[in-house]
Formats: sequence, C-alpha cells, structure tokens
Amino acid sequence: MIIIGEKINGSIPAVAEAIAKRDAEFIKNRAKMQADAGATYIDCCASVPEAEEVETLKWMIDCIQEVTDLPISVDSPSAKVLAEVFPYCKRPGLINSVSGEGDKLDTIFPLIADTKWECVALCSDDTGIPKTAADRLRVFDKIMAKAKEYGIKPSRLHIDPLVEMLCTSEDGIALNEEVISTIREQYPTIHITAAISNISFNLPVRKLVNLGFTVLAMKAGLDSAILDPTNRDMMGVIYATEALLGNDDFCMEYIEAYRDGIFGPKKD
Amino acid sequence: MIIIGEKINGSIPAVAEAIAKRDAEFIKNRAKMQADAGATYIDCCASVPEAEEVETLKWMIDCIQEVTDLPISVDSPSAKVLAEVFPYCKRPGLINSVSGEGDKLDTIFPLIADTKWECVALCSDDTGIPKTAADRLRVFDKIMAKAKEYGIKPSRLHIDPLVEMLCTSEDGIALNEEVISTIREQYPTIHITAAISNISFNLPVRKLVNLGFTVLAMKAGLDSAILDPTNRDMMGVIYATEALLGNDDFCMEYIEAYRDGIFGPKKD
Repeated sequence: MIIIGEKINGSIPAVAEAIAKRDAEFIKNRAKMQADAGATYIDCCASVPEAEEVETLKWMIDCIQEVTDLPISVDSPSAKVLAEVFPYCKRPGLINSVSGEGDKLDTIFPLIADTKWECVALCSDDTGIPKTAADRLRVFDKIMAKAKEYGIKPSRLHIDPLVEMLCTSEDGIALNEEVISTIREQYPTIHITAAISNISFNLPVRKLVNLGFTVLAMKAGLDSAILDPTNRDMMGVIYATEALLGNDDFCMEYIEAYRDGIFGPKKD
Repeated sequence: MIIIGEKINGSIPAVAEAIAKRDAEFIKNRAKMQADAGATYIDCCASVPEAEEVETLKWMIDCIQEVTDLPISVDSPSAKVLAEVFPYCKRPGLINSVSGEGDKLDTIFPLIADTKWECVALCSDDTGIPKTAADRLRVFDKIMAKAKEYGIKPSRLHIDPLVEMLCTSEDGIALNEEVISTIREQYPTIHITAAISNISFNLPVRKLVNLGFTVLAMKAGLDSAILDPTNRDMMGVIYATEALLGNDDFCMEYIEAYRDGIFGPKKD
C-alpha cells in the first residue's frame, strides 16, 4: 500500500499557523513523524492565496527535504502552481492533483512526460463530481486517453475515484466500489488512491468509518491512500488487510511492520 | 449484524475459575456487560469434563437468565449435552453447535424442528475441517439436506465456514470468502457466522487483524459473529461496515448505536 501522509496541509489550523509564522521546526517535525510512521510520500499543501502559493510551497518543501529523503506529494488546486513548483523538488514525487477539469491534463502531463514524476488524477471535470459511476468512468477514460497521448504509463498514475461523505448516501460506497474495481480490472498496474477521511465527514467516531472504508476499498482494488500515517490502528489494519487479501504470505510483512513499530503499542 | 457474545466460556482462565468456585456474581457480571454492550445472544460454554457439563451449564444458564432476557447460545462440543440442556432455557436461543460429524445433525435437528431455536452448523465432518472450499460446501450441502428433511428453514441456521489462522495461509482468506459468498448467493435468508478471533491466532496486535477480517467477511455475506461485544472498536466498525455496504441509509443506525454508547469514547 502506498501511503501519502496528509498532515502537512494548510487547511489544518495548526499547520496554517506554522506557515504564517514560518515555523520551520513545526513543518520539519510533521515531516519526520510521518516518515517514521511509514509514509511513502509526504503531502505538501499550502492552502494560501494563489499569489503566495509558489513561494510558500517552496519554503515548505525546503523544510521537508531537510529532514527526510521521502518523495513529496506537491499538492495544489492550481495546475499553474503545480507546474511551477514541482521541478523545485530534489527528487521525483507525486503531483497532487490533476482532473478532467479545464486544461489541467494538458498543462501537467506534457511537463512530467519525460520525468519519473507520478500524478494523482481525480475523476471530476468541468461539470464537477459526476453523480454516477458511469460518468466518473467516462472522466477516467478521458484521463487515460490524455496519458496515452503524452506517453505516461498507467503505473505512474494514481486515480482518485473521489470519496464523498457516507452520511448522505443511501447505498453505501457501491459507487466507489464500482469505479475502483472497474479501473483495477482494466489496468492491473495503475494506482488507485483516495482521501480516506472524506468518507466519515459529519459522523461520530470517524476513525472507525475510515477503517472500514479502507478495508473495503482495498478489497475493490485501492492500493494508495491519502491519510494520517501516524494513526497506528489504520496502518496496522492496512497491513492486516494486505495479508487477508492474500498479498502477504504467512503475514511476514505484517509481522515485520509490527516489529518496526509501525503499529501496536508504542515502544518508548 | 447478529452478535454472539463469547465472554462466558470455560476455556477462558478467569471464567474457568469462576465456574470451579461457582462464583455466580462473576458470570452474571459478564452476562450483563455483554448485554449492555449490544450482544444479540450470550454464549454459554462450560469447558468441563462431559460428566459435569450438564449440571455446570444449567448453573451458568441460571446465572445468565437472572440478569438478562437475551437468548442464550448453548455451547458444547457434545450433541448429547446440547440436547439435554437446551430445553432448560427459559426462551428459545441458539444451539452452538452441530456439524456434519457423526450423528450430530440427526440428534439435534429433530429436537429443535418444532421449536423456535436456531442452530450454528459448522462446515466440518468426520474427516475434520475440509481443506478446500468445494469440500466445505459439500458438508454445507449435507447440512442443508438434513435441515430440509427435518423442516428447519435456512433462516434458523447460522452456518460457520470455519475460520483458521491467517499466519499459516498463503492466499489470505480467499477460501472463507468463497464459502461465505457461495452460501449467501444460494440462501439469501440464511445466517453465516464465524468465530472471528480464530483468524488472528499467533499474530501480534490481534484486534487489528480481527477488524479487517470482520469487514471483509461481512462484504462476502457474513451477518453473524462470535466475538467480544465489549470490544467497542469492533462494534463500531461493524456498524460502520453495515453503512458502507449500503445496509444503513444515511448512517441512522450507526449514529443511534453511537448515541446508545455501543462505541466511541466511554461515557461515565
């Protein structure tokens, strides 16, 4: 499972404060914590006005790169900002994100075509988030056509089917399961990702809904997730689910992750 | 989800001690705790030599019935003991268990045919636990033929596909998923149950493996489980999974269970 650590995001009040004060220690600490917890990428999102975003992201990237060699997930709603910032990173990471909206695909895909950068692509377009699985899959097809056009292999894409809150749903996560399993069947090597915690918005004890969702999404074909890697129960359930799904013979990786302190009671 | 509370079982050392001392308060307390935690049945297993089992179970049943009106799951490996003890209960409950072994089905099924008792039936026979899904399903077919012969409806049966430890498996729970989903497809109204914690035997942080397994087994068609209902995270994940699977419109039952204190931070 690919873990995109979500804890350096300016939409989190404590992070916003650290960004405003240019508190490098705070950002470095969050990067280090997530690296130690087993993250694959460190997401880096400024959530500041676009005029300040490039400079802010560069400062944040400097902080992160000072404490970890993990690749960065450069996170912005603006394709223009992403295009300007990603080459600033020391090593190839993840663009987070493009979608079928506007000219995002045509802005980003040519820039990363001949690089090792990977890219999150959301199944939304100028109409917003499509209401049906069929319509999200139509956006997906458009993304794949563009990827092919620019010579980007499926294994460099992390498709996000877009997770909406469960509390307004009448048929659970059937739509997500359909989108994920259809994509997984068509493209065995593609990555499928999700911002896990969106599912539990407005519900009590969100972590339990997040856990259940992660297991079911992995069953459908999810192999990447945007979440808090310092949530030890979540990390353990992800390792357990890999074993339950037959991806970890004799639970060797589960046991190794436990020994590495990724989950279980915290050792002092 | 049907929850069979597993905490009154003589194979648990503290329970064995309470049974030996005829410590009624201990048994009553465990019955009450499980009832308050949201159990559907209170399992009652003596784990004593067969010569003492009937008398012991009757004493345990008295203790349980003094504190809760919940139906009892009368639990013994001996069909003879089950046959003698179940009529002693005040109200119809669950026989736990029969299997394709020996004359268990022909001993128990005629006795409960004209009652409201339900029955757990294990997919094992005189050869032990079959190694393949096909062979477990053959035992299941034998159970269903006997049930039909005695006029017991599928909705009164809790089929246990038999859960073995994950740590010795090379393909995760594929066998269990196949058995469960095949049975569920054939019999929409049957109950499918499992002793959840068997899956995590010999692994660290067993609760996380148990959680992942429960979610995947529910996805396959499990609707009953033998577990510890005082495990609040497990109970919450079960409610969450019902909602994720589309069995709980707008998460109304999830939210109600939370308000009832079934999961989430403990209220004083």
